[in-house]
Amino acid sequence: MTEPVTIPLSELHDRRAFLARASALTLAIPGVGAALTACSPPATPSRTDTTHGAPQAGAAGGAAQGVNQPHNSDSRLDSAVLKGGPHGNTSATGTATQGAQSTTFHRFAPELPPLAPGGLLQLRWHAREAPVRISDDTVVAAWTFEGDVPGPIVHTRVGDTVEFTLTNDAMIPHSMDFHAAQIDPKHAFKSVAKDQSLTFTFKPKWAGAFMYHCGTAPVLMHIGAGMHGAIIVSPREPLPPAKEFVLVHSELYLDEAPGDTHAANFQKMLNTMPDLVVFNGRPNQYIKDPIRVKVGDRVRFWVVSAGPQYQCAFHVVGEQFDTVYLGAPPTSAIRGVQTFAVPPGGGMVFELVCDIPGEFPFVNHSFGHGQKGAIGILVVA
Amino acid sequence: MTEPVTIPLSELHDRRAFLARASALTLAIPGVGAALTACSPPATPSRTDTTHGAPQAGAAGGAAQGVNQPHNSDSRLDSAVLKGGPHGNTSATGTATQGAQSTTFHRFAPELPPLAPGGLLQLRWHAREAPVRISDDTVVAAWTFEGDVPGPIVHTRVGDTVEFTLTNDAMIPHSMDFHAAQIDPKHAFKSVAKDQSLTFTFKPKWAGAFMYHCGTAPVLMHIGAGMHGAIIVSPREPLPPAKEFVLVHSELYLDEAPGDTHAANFQKMLNTMPDLVVFNGRPNQYIKDPIRVKVGDRVRFWVVSAGPQYQCAFHVVGEQFDTVYLGAPPTSAIRGVQTFAVPPGGGMVFELVCDIPGEFPFVNHSFGHGQKGAIGILVVA
Amino acid sequence: MTEPVTIPLSELHDRRAFLARASALTLAIPGVGAALTACSPPATPSRTDTTHGAPQAGAAGGAAQGVNQPHNSDSRLDSAVLKGGPHGNTSATGTATQGAQSTTFHRFAPELPPLAPGGLLQLRWHAREAPVRISDDTVVAAWTFEGDVPGPIVHTRVGDTVEFTLTNDAMIPHSMDFHAAQIDPKHAFKSVAKDQSLTFTFKPKWAGAFMYHCGTAPVLMHIGAGMHGAIIVSPREPLPPAKEFVLVHSELYLDEAPGDTHAANFQKMLNTMPDLVVFNGRPNQYIKDPIRVKVGDRVRFWVVSAGPQYQCAFHVVGEQFDTVYLGAPPTSAIRGVQTFAVPPGGGMVFELVCDIPGEFPFVNHSFGHGQKGAIGILVVA
Repeated sequence: MTEPVTIPLSELHDRRAFLARASALTLAIPGVGAALTACSPPATPSRTDTTHGAPQAGAAGGAAQGVNQPHNSDSRLDSAVLKGGPHGNTSATGTATQGAQSTTFHRFAPELPPLAPGGLLQLRWHAREAPVRISDDTVVAAWTFEGDVPGPIVHTRVGDTVEFTLTNDAMIPHSMDFHAAQIDPKHAFKSVAKDQSLTFTFKPKWAGAFMYHCGTAPVLMHIGAGMHGAIIVSPREPLPPAKEFVLVHSELYLDEAPGDTHAANFQKMLNTMPDLVVFNGRPNQYIKDPIRVKVGDRVRFWVVSAGPQYQCAFHVVGEQFDTVYLGAPPTSAIRGVQTFAVPPGGGMVFELVCDIPGEFPFVNHSFGHGQKGAIGILVVA
Repeated sequence: MTEPVTIPLSELHDRRAFLARASALTLAIPGVGAALTACSPPATPSRTDTTHGAPQAGAAGGAAQGVNQPHNSDSRLDSAVLKGGPHGNTSATGTATQGAQSTTFHRFAPELPPLAPGGLLQLRWHAREAPVRISDDTVVAAWTFEGDVPGPIVHTRVGDTVEFTLTNDAMIPHSMDFHAAQIDPKHAFKSVAKDQSLTFTFKPKWAGAFMYHCGTAPVLMHIGAGMHGAIIVSPREPLPPAKEFVLVHSELYLDEAPGDTHAANFQKMLNTMPDLVVFNGRPNQYIKDPIRVKVGDRVRFWVVSAGPQYQCAFHVVGEQFDTVYLGAPPTSAIRGVQTFAVPPGGGMVFELVCDIPGEFPFVNHSFGHGQKGAIGILVVA
Repeated sequence: MTEPVTIPLSELHDRRAFLARASALTLAIPGVGAALTACSPPATPSRTDTTHGAPQAGAAGGAAQGVNQPHNSDSRLDSAVLKGGPHGNTSATGTATQGAQSTTFHRFAPELPPLAPGGLLQLRWHAREAPVRISDDTVVAAWTFEGDVPGPIVHTRVGDTVEFTLTNDAMIPHSMDFHAAQIDPKHAFKSVAKDQSLTFTFKPKWAGAFMYHCGTAPVLMHIGAGMHGAIIVSPREPLPPAKEFVLVHSELYLDEAPGDTHAANFQKMLNTMPDLVVFNGRPNQYIKDPIRVKVGDRVRFWVVSAGPQYQCAFHVVGEQFDTVYLGAPPTSAIRGVQTFAVPPGGGMVFELVCDIPGEFPFVNHSFGHGQKGAIGILVVA
C-alpha cells in the first residue's frame, strides 16, 4: 500500500520551477544525464522492469524518480506522489484493490444519455480508487471518476451550463480537465487533495466528442489508470435524428497486483506497449452483448480516443460512414469514409445509415491494437 | 506443417459467445487473468518469443492460446486455427513454402487498371498459400489472394456491379472483406473452408481508395500474412485526367521458415515492431524500377494503408500535393499538402502536377518505418 | 572518431542501383535474408544493441551493414557512411562533442520571425556537427544546420523567392530538403561533401508550416541527429492578425557519447522507442520559460512534426482551436477542435483566441510521448 508524501510548504511557492521538474518525467533530477546513466537493471528486476531493456529502463528510471517528487497541490500538473515498494509505481493504491473478488462485471452502456433539462447540468463527482471488473475473470485496480472506467458519459449542449464539483476520496491528488471547457486550468483543473472539493462552471462553445481526464501529474499515469471519459456537446441546432452511441477508446498497461487483481503500470505506459485496447473500458464487451439498432436508423458514434498514447483507426466492417466530422459538427465534415483515425486526446463523430440488416463489427483497424480487445458488433435488425 | 483443427459441432451454435473468446486474442481462455499470468517465457524460447520480454509475452501468450481455439466456419471472425509446432504461429502453412527457391521476383505493377466494360466486374479469385519473392534473395511464405501480395488491384466505379467469388485452396479458412461494399459481413464476408466457394455481389456507393482483406480471425494474422489489397472506386463523373497509380502500404513481421523462406509471425505482429515496411509488397521496388510519367502530367496516387498496424505518412520529395481527398472524391478535399497520414485500414487520394522534370522519391515520412523499405521514386521526364 | 569512406568512382555511375541498396537500410547486402539471419547478438553487445532483442537486432543488423556502404555524393539519398567503432552508429562524429562542457543552454525562441524585405530571402547556411545543450545538465552531440537543433526558423511568403546556399563543414555529406519547394531533388537536394557548397532557388506555391531536413541517407539518422526545422510560408493575402509561434516537434534517441555527452543512436531510431520527445529541441523548455501573450490575442501555432517517426497530437489544455488548417491556409480549415495529429514530415496551423487570462499547457496528447518532454505553457495575462 502506498501513502501520499507530505508536501513541503517550500514546494508550494514556485509552481513553474516545480513543473519543470515534475512533469519532465523522463528527466530524473538533476536531469537527463542522470536518467540516461540510470540504465542498469534494478537490483531486483521484476518481469515488468526489464521489458525493453536498458534504454527504456533509462527513461523509466527517470520517471520512477520523477514520481517520488513531492507535489504541489496548487497545480494541475501535480505529481502523483507515489511512494516506492513492490506496487509503488502502479495504480494499486488505497482502496483500489479492496473488495475486488466481489466486484461484478457490468457492460458499459454506450447510449448517449439525454440532455439535462433547463440548460443546466450539475455534476457532483468523486475521484476514487476502486476495483473494476473488466471481464469475467479480470479485475483492474483503477483510479476512477465515480467508481467506473471510463467515467460517466456527460451530455450537454453548446451554450448550456455545466457546473462541476470534484470531491477527492482517494489517497493521492486528482483533478478534472474537460476538453469541452475554455477555462484557466491553473484554477479550474488544479489538483484536489484527499477529502477536499473544487467546483467550476463552464459553457461549451463548440459541439463535438470531447475527452475529459484527470490532469494531475504524471498525466500519463492518471489517464492510463482509468481517469478518463467523454463529454459530448450537441450543437444547438440539432443534427439529423439518429441513434447515438459513445465509444471511449483506451489502452491498458497491466501488472499483477494484490488480491488477484491487475494494476495499471506506469513503466509499461512509458514503454507504450499496451496489453489490452478497448472500447468503454472492457475488452470486446460489445461482441458478447452487441449494440443494437433497427433497419433504417442513422447511427451516430461519438468516438473519443482517451489513449493515453494511441489513436483509434475507427472502422465498421460492411459499412461506410456517409459523414465524419473532423471538427465541430455540423462543420468540418468529410464524406464517404471507410476509416479515420481519432487522435489520442481527441474526438470525432462518425455517422452511417443502416439501410440493410446484418451484424457489423466495429473495430480499431490498427489491428495490432484492435486484436487486443477493440472489437465490438453493431447489430442491425 | 499445420492442419486445420476439427470443428466441434457444439461450437457452431453460439456464434457470439465464440467470438467473445476467439477474437479476443490477447485474452486466453478463460480470460485476461490467465493471459496475464501466462507471462513466463516458453520452455523452449525462440528468438522471436523473447522479443519484448514478459509483458508482450503475456499478450502473445494469450494470443498463442487464442489461436489454438476451435473455429466457427460460419463467422467472418473465425480463428485461423493454427496448430502448434515450430512454425505453428506463422504463415508457413500448407503450400506456402513449396517451390520457394524457383519463385521469381516480379515488380508489382502500380498502374490503375482500366474499368471493366458494361458496368459489371466479375472476379473469381482463389485464396491460397504461396511463396512470394519480395527481393532478389528473400522469399516470404504468404497467405494470398491469387498468389501475390498485395492481391490484384480492383478497379470499379460508383454504381457499377462487382460480382465476387472466393474459392479457398488453402488449408485454413479464409474470407474476403471489401471496404468498398455495404453488405452484411455475417454472410458476405464469412469464412470459406478448404475447397469451398462463396459468391457475393455489391455496388459501391462512394468513390475512393478502399482496402480489401481477409476478415477471418485472427484478422491481424491474415492481413499481416499477405491477404490484403486495394479496390479503387472511381466516381461516375470522372476526376481530372491523370496518370493513376495504386500504392498499398503494409508491414512485414518475419521469422525464419522452412526452405530458406521467411514467414509472417503472429507474435511479432502483436509486438507491433515490423521488420519491413513496403509499398505494394516489396521493399524499395520502385527505387530500382521507378514509376515514370511525363512533364505536365497530373499524377493521382490512390494510397491504401493495409497495416496491419500502422498508418502511412505519405510524402513526395520535391513536390507538393495540390489536392488530397480525405474522403470520397470529388468531396472532402484539402489543398497544398506536403504530407498526410493514411490510417491503417483506410485510403486517401493524393494528386500533384508534374510541371518540372526530375526524380521525386515518394516515402512514408514516418522514417523509422520509411527507412525499412517504404521508399520509391517517381521519375518525371 | 569517424571518417568519411573513400568513394569508389565506380559507385558514381549507377545512382539507382546504389539507392536500391543504400536506402534499403534494413536490407543488408545481399538482402533481407542476410539481415534476418544476422540476428544473433553482436560479439560485444552494448546496452543499446540489445534493446529489443533479436528481431529488432535483425533489422538493425541489416541497418548497421547498410550504413557501411560507400556513398554516392551525387544523390540526395546518400549513405551517411559512418565507419564502425564504439560510436560508429551514432551522431558522435567529428566536432559534435568538442567543447560540450562549455556549451550553454539557451531557450529556443518560438516567435515567427518577420518576412524578409523585397520578397527575397537569402540564406547562407552551414551544416555542422556541434554539441547542443538541451537542458541544464544534458548535452547532445548533434548534426545541425547553423549549430542548433532545430535549425533556424525560416519565414517566407507564397511567391517570394528563397535563395539557399548550403556549405558543409561536417565530416560526412549533408543536404537540404525543403518541403516548401517544388524542385528536382536530384539536383537541389543532393548531398554536399565536406567543404563544398550548393545553391538553389525556389518560390513557394502554397502557404503552410513546412518541414525542412537533411535528405542524405539514411534520412532517418540525419533527421534524428538534429538536421531538421521549419519553413513557414505565409499566404500573400494575410491571415487575421495574430501572435505567431513556431513549434517543431521531434524525438530524441540517445546513447552515451564521449565527453559526458549523449549521441543520437541510429539503432534506437530503428527501434522507434524515443527517450525524449520535445518542442523545439529541448524537453519542457516552455514550462520553465513559457510563451506569453495578452488577453484578446489571437494565437497562431505553426506546428511541424519533424519526427523522425511520430506524429504530434497537438492540444492546448483549457482551450480549443477555433481553426485548424489541415492544408494550405486559408483553405482546408476545420473548426472547433480540441486535438489534431500533425503527421511526421508534415505541418498544420492551429489558431485560438485568448479571451481569458490563465496558464494553458500545450502538449502532445499522445502522453506516452508527451510525458517525455513535449509539454509547454502558454501564459495569457
